[in-house]
Amino acid sequence: MSNYSIAIHGGAGTILKNVMTPEKEHAYSQALKEAIEAGEFILKNGGTAIDAVEIAVRSMEDNPLFNAGKGAVFTNLGKNEMDASIMDGNDLSAGAVAGISNIKNPISLAKAVMKKSEHVFLVGNGALDFAKEMNAQFEDDAYFFVQMRQDQLNQAKESDGMFLDHTSTDKFENGEKKFGTVGAVALDVHGNLAAATSTGGMTNKKYGRVGDSPIIGAGTYANNDTCAISCTGHGELFIRSVTAYDVSCLMEYKELSLKDACNEVVHNKLVKIGGEGGLIAIDNKGNIELSFNSDGMYRAKKSSTSELFIGIYK
Amino acid sequence: MSNYSIAIHGGAGTILKNVMTPEKEHAYSQALKEAIEAGEFILKNGGTAIDAVEIAVRSMEDNPLFNAGKGAVFTNLGKNEMDASIMDGNDLSAGAVAGISNIKNPISLAKAVMKKSEHVFLVGNGALDFAKEMNAQFEDDAYFFVQMRQDQLNQAKESDGMFLDHTSTDKFENGEKKFGTVGAVALDVHGNLAAATSTGGMTNKKYGRVGDSPIIGAGTYANNDTCAISCTGHGELFIRSVTAYDVSCLMEYKELSLKDACNEVVHNKLVKIGGEGGLIAIDNKGNIELSFNSDGMYRAKKSSTSELFIGIYK
Repeated sequence: MSNYSIAIHGGAGTILKNVMTPEKEHAYSQALKEAIEAGEFILKNGGTAIDAVEIAVRSMEDNPLFNAGKGAVFTNLGKNEMDASIMDGNDLSAGAVAGISNIKNPISLAKAVMKKSEHVFLVGNGALDFAKEMNAQFEDDAYFFVQMRQDQLNQAKESDGMFLDHTSTDKFENGEKKFGTVGAVALDVHGNLAAATSTGGMTNKKYGRVGDSPIIGAGTYANNDTCAISCTGHGELFIRSVTAYDVSCLMEYKELSLKDACNEVVHNKLVKIGGEGGLIAIDNKGNIELSFNSDGMYRAKKSSTSELFIGIYK
Repeated sequence: MSNYSIAIHGGAGTILKNVMTPEKEHAYSQALKEAIEAGEFILKNGGTAIDAVEIAVRSMEDNPLFNAGKGAVFTNLGKNEMDASIMDGNDLSAGAVAGISNIKNPISLAKAVMKKSEHVFLVGNGALDFAKEMNAQFEDDAYFFVQMRQDQLNQAKESDGMFLDHTSTDKFENGEKKFGTVGAVALDVHGNLAAATSTGGMTNKKYGRVGDSPIIGAGTYANNDTCAISCTGHGELFIRSVTAYDVSCLMEYKELSLKDACNEVVHNKLVKIGGEGGLIAIDNKGNIELSFNSDGMYRAKKSSTSELFIGIYK
């Protein structure tokens, strides 16, 4: 086996061409291209799927265009509270963090939890204690500050709303409603699948809310026997639907193809429960699905046998 | 339909008859009887499954014998950090909290998240802010203090270990290894299933570790189309296995009976990955399963057509 595949997303939602400027469209496309090429470089050189998804997600965490890492949205208290998770389909090992601040790359901290702790899920200040012991890279608040996110927080507070990145309101980002999350899935030349997801959560969120991104089975899942999945959308509905693992179960237990399993979950089960968003998926043969029931999803895919595809709208 | 069923657990692990005193055995049996009768009272009077599982879990949270609520184990910093989740199989609504302190009944806070917030999962201080707005019952540290838990923390610190309630060591609780968690599942006379799980986590835990108990799909799941599940065991393995939802998927997609689905998950899939523990399950016909791959599990079951059963050992 020497084939590889990789796919990434940068969030889904009400992303409409008529409210997008050519400059912004170009910036997003370029950012997606950089991220997927960073991951592909690993795979092309015989690296592992787990390293490829980490690198691709790091690239998007470092880019202020996406709601993860630098560019994460602000909570009600004006802080960044970030969540991330990663899973290796080879041995079902997994790591996740939630409610963390000042960590440059949450996805790499999640990977350290997976590789270097006996745990899967660390939250809040405890996760930061672990990060210090691991010599994880911290950044001060100034690093994470992006004026657009401050404006969003001010707008959200004015209307007393809580927004998943950019919720649809007239005042808000020209009617855009985006579920800001980034994610990557990959199949490496050794036949291993991996998935990674990272998010800055909701603008103006209170109460230490955690969505599906750091939840293994909901936002992220990988299993060499079936598929690797990373989700983006209205997190509460994805948690209640156990979305990522559901795709895997439909393949394993009902013998659906990756395409049919993704269709069932995204266009039937999630729609019935009101779960707007999407997911990216790769199966163990290298097939790629980019499924969403929203108006758009920032997305890209590439494999050893297919050209780079970048998409934004439906 | 006028049948009802209820089952509860108070944790699984190395629970051996030869290290149990008759007094302790009696106390656990009595505590299980009280909890299940509290839940059954709701069901017998036409109440809902969601209220029944809440009440049964509250009873065990209030009892210092179990590692949940009063009697929760101490973290490395000498605090109680508790987690809980609840799910209603009728509409797949769910609520969960993690890393919370000083809340008398974490399961009721999880229920408030489900019923009175737009979220599913709240963690840490944010969850406590929500609790204050809900007028949840707080208790000071003295309420939660149980000398046995302090002794366990001291022993764990001496050996620099981290224990799931009582991990097996010669010095530690006479060789007992228990996964301290409580949970309940129920079918009400209206045909609704519900599940609830609550835990105090691991003795001497660091880093804000969160196990499977508050994770919808891992420690808790309920769906009127299939079953209600509450798990107890080595949480990291249960998260990676998405254990609770896996039982549901095996029924829905592979058309296994509840008994066969529980056997497959507990005695095959979990064993393969090294996941010690168990689960309680009820399907939408009222069948009850109490499955575990450890030496024992504190458990009880009762239905409108069957007598009370209480079990501790294999």
